[in-house]
Amino acid sequence: MPFRFTIERTAGAARAGVFTTPHGAVETPSFMPVGTLASVKAIDPDDLHAMRVQMILANAYHLHLRPGDELVRQLGGLHRFMGWDGPILTDSGGFQVFSLADLRRVDENGVEFKSHLDGSTRFFTPELVMRIERNLGADVIMQFDHVIPGQSDDVAARDASERSIRWLERCRAEFVRLDETGDATAAPYGEQALFPVVQGGIHEVLRREAASRTAAAGDFAGYGIGGLSVGEPKPETYRILEVMDESLPRERPRYLMGVGFPEDLIEGVRRGVDLFDCVAPTRMGRTGAAFTSLGRVNVKRAELRADGAPLDPNCGCPLCSRFSRAYLRHLVTSDEILGLRLLSLHNVHFLVALMRDARAAIRDERFARWSREWLERYYSGAASPSSPATTP
Amino acid sequence: MPFRFTIERTAGAARAGVFTTPHGAVETPSFMPVGTLASVKAIDPDDLHAMRVQMILANAYHLHLRPGDELVRQLGGLHRFMGWDGPILTDSGGFQVFSLADLRRVDENGVEFKSHLDGSTRFFTPELVMRIERNLGADVIMQFDHVIPGQSDDVAARDASERSIRWLERCRAEFVRLDETGDATAAPYGEQALFPVVQGGIHEVLRREAASRTAAAGDFAGYGIGGLSVGEPKPETYRILEVMDESLPRERPRYLMGVGFPEDLIEGVRRGVDLFDCVAPTRMGRTGAAFTSLGRVNVKRAELRADGAPLDPNCGCPLCSRFSRAYLRHLVTSDEILGLRLLSLHNVHFLVALMRDARAAIRDERFARWSREWLERYYSGAASPSSPATTP
Repeated sequence: MPFRFTIERTAGAARAGVFTTPHGAVETPSFMPVGTLASVKAIDPDDLHAMRVQMILANAYHLHLRPGDELVRQLGGLHRFMGWDGPILTDSGGFQVFSLADLRRVDENGVEFKSHLDGSTRFFTPELVMRIERNLGADVIMQFDHVIPGQSDDVAARDASERSIRWLERCRAEFVRLDETGDATAAPYGEQALFPVVQGGIHEVLRREAASRTAAAGDFAGYGIGGLSVGEPKPETYRILEVMDESLPRERPRYLMGVGFPEDLIEGVRRGVDLFDCVAPTRMGRTGAAFTSLGRVNVKRAELRADGAPLDPNCGCPLCSRFSRAYLRHLVTSDEILGLRLLSLHNVHFLVALMRDARAAIRDERFARWSREWLERYYSGAASPSSPATTP
Repeated sequence: MPFRFTIERTAGAARAGVFTTPHGAVETPSFMPVGTLASVKAIDPDDLHAMRVQMILANAYHLHLRPGDELVRQLGGLHRFMGWDGPILTDSGGFQVFSLADLRRVDENGVEFKSHLDGSTRFFTPELVMRIERNLGADVIMQFDHVIPGQSDDVAARDASERSIRWLERCRAEFVRLDETGDATAAPYGEQALFPVVQGGIHEVLRREAASRTAAAGDFAGYGIGGLSVGEPKPETYRILEVMDESLPRERPRYLMGVGFPEDLIEGVRRGVDLFDCVAPTRMGRTGAAFTSLGRVNVKRAELRADGAPLDPNCGCPLCSRFSRAYLRHLVTSDEILGLRLLSLHNVHFLVALMRDARAAIRDERFARWSREWLERYYSGAASPSSPATTP
């Protein structure tokens, strides 16, 4: 069985595990950097290896539009195309169709939308998305789901959640069919695992129902938790994560989609989440914002102008181990590409190392204290007017 | 003596040498990538080392405006500021003042101009430029010179050339004074060498005169050749380079400023040039253009869409050794930062490796044939309608 999940140790709901895929093992909890267009923005696959990134994400919607999933298949699949030999997960485009594309029309068959690139009309069905993700050839592929705004009412949330469950069935049927036909149009590479996406908004009843119906639909290698961190208040997120922890199979990895920020990762791990992804570290890196162990820092701040200290004294990334805040600020304020690259490296390294530390804390039976102290330090730094992150 | 130049072998006017500086040796002929604002655009110092780049360039004008040469001095000088421990050369800002800045007014004392960043009025004198370059702390610093358009008439060229020679005297006096005072305002780091810049446009008489007067003005560790490749026809460039080869001291390195392209480098080496710099490889990298051994390639071309071959089959750079033309084209057409980074790496690697090959050919006594064959291959590839660089 090419997909396996082994839980080594728990701390309350938190788990230290190993998720095995055809392209290697992922030690969980783990953060997956996002390579939307088959490139983690500004970062090289060699950098990812050097930072000990284990699994990355790519976007079916974006790659379908550009350069085209058929082309990627033709060139040997995503791993070969982008020069990354580790595990990859592709999302299904559900989120992008509902957030980026214009003029969408949803019916039971699928979603009609206009491409955000050229306005051309497209129609995504669960079956088409499976074929796209098969062509891309990631290790883990997500089902096509119906995504709705974060604070949708019960009726809209139920409608979308139930449609997502029906679409899961169609995804699975197509996934099995593609696997069995294995003809010339199928991807020439290894086995894939289909993850369902559990929806239900912030409605506890819907979430429990979606979780149990999804789990009843088959034995999946892992589960996606969708529709969170989309604008709802944090306490709602945490409450729903606790519901998910109770209602999803414990022996499978849970992937909290599109999250996120350091504090969200720790709160997620506390509530039984194993995998995370988010564009935040690279997007922030391109705008001059940095995660540090003492809080978030705007690198353009005038106080950093002559500051010879590293950005984060507790960080061993390629930025902090070699360059000063002053140099980083100079690069960022001068729009030098090296600046956004170093900052993207730092932010990705920060989240990856954070999850590595969380894992070590779970294994060493000190997770509760570690996570409490970590968050205290993080918030104290951000709150301070003369932050230790900017005046060494 | 911290600056030394040893010629190991010659082939006609071409020389294979070693230029020793306080931060290490430079094997010549050599191409110096340009780090305008203390960063070779999109490239990390570690990348430079990996590509065996030996010496880089930075710009006094740009760094004076941003982040300020005083700040760089305060932070330990350019080497430490930008994390590059190899040799550095700074140009004097002469070229920038006359090409980028607005509303300049030249008199015998110096040049008044408006900053291209904020329009503020600035006044550069030879003395101020020496203090700027002293603060930056590069190994080699260029004199402040009067730069004029490429095809200026004899009167304008003579005026600028003679002024540059007078300014050389003032640069040297200030350079010596700064060295002797060595007070708190002086740079805290090692010895520097001042290179004159020989001007004279495309006027043979002026060039000979400038060269002999410059050489008579003192024993410099090397000589800059300015005012070429600024719009004049190639045969004029080559003719003037031959004049420079005859009239400059043979036992010192010659640095042809702002050049450039592969063919120009080879033609320069043939005429006794040892050092080159140009923004072309990184600038082209950011616009999707590549040097290859078979000619220049526009990476956005539709023919590359499904091309699984490396950009240049004869190249061992971080791009060509790992990625396909199809992936590179996808990155570049999608405005992915990784695309322009990989292309910048490739183009810099290409010129650096080209000069390494030229050096090996001189040492092995096969330079004439090597350079002829290299140029034939380069031009044939570019000329071909179904170029081997695009159809593997």
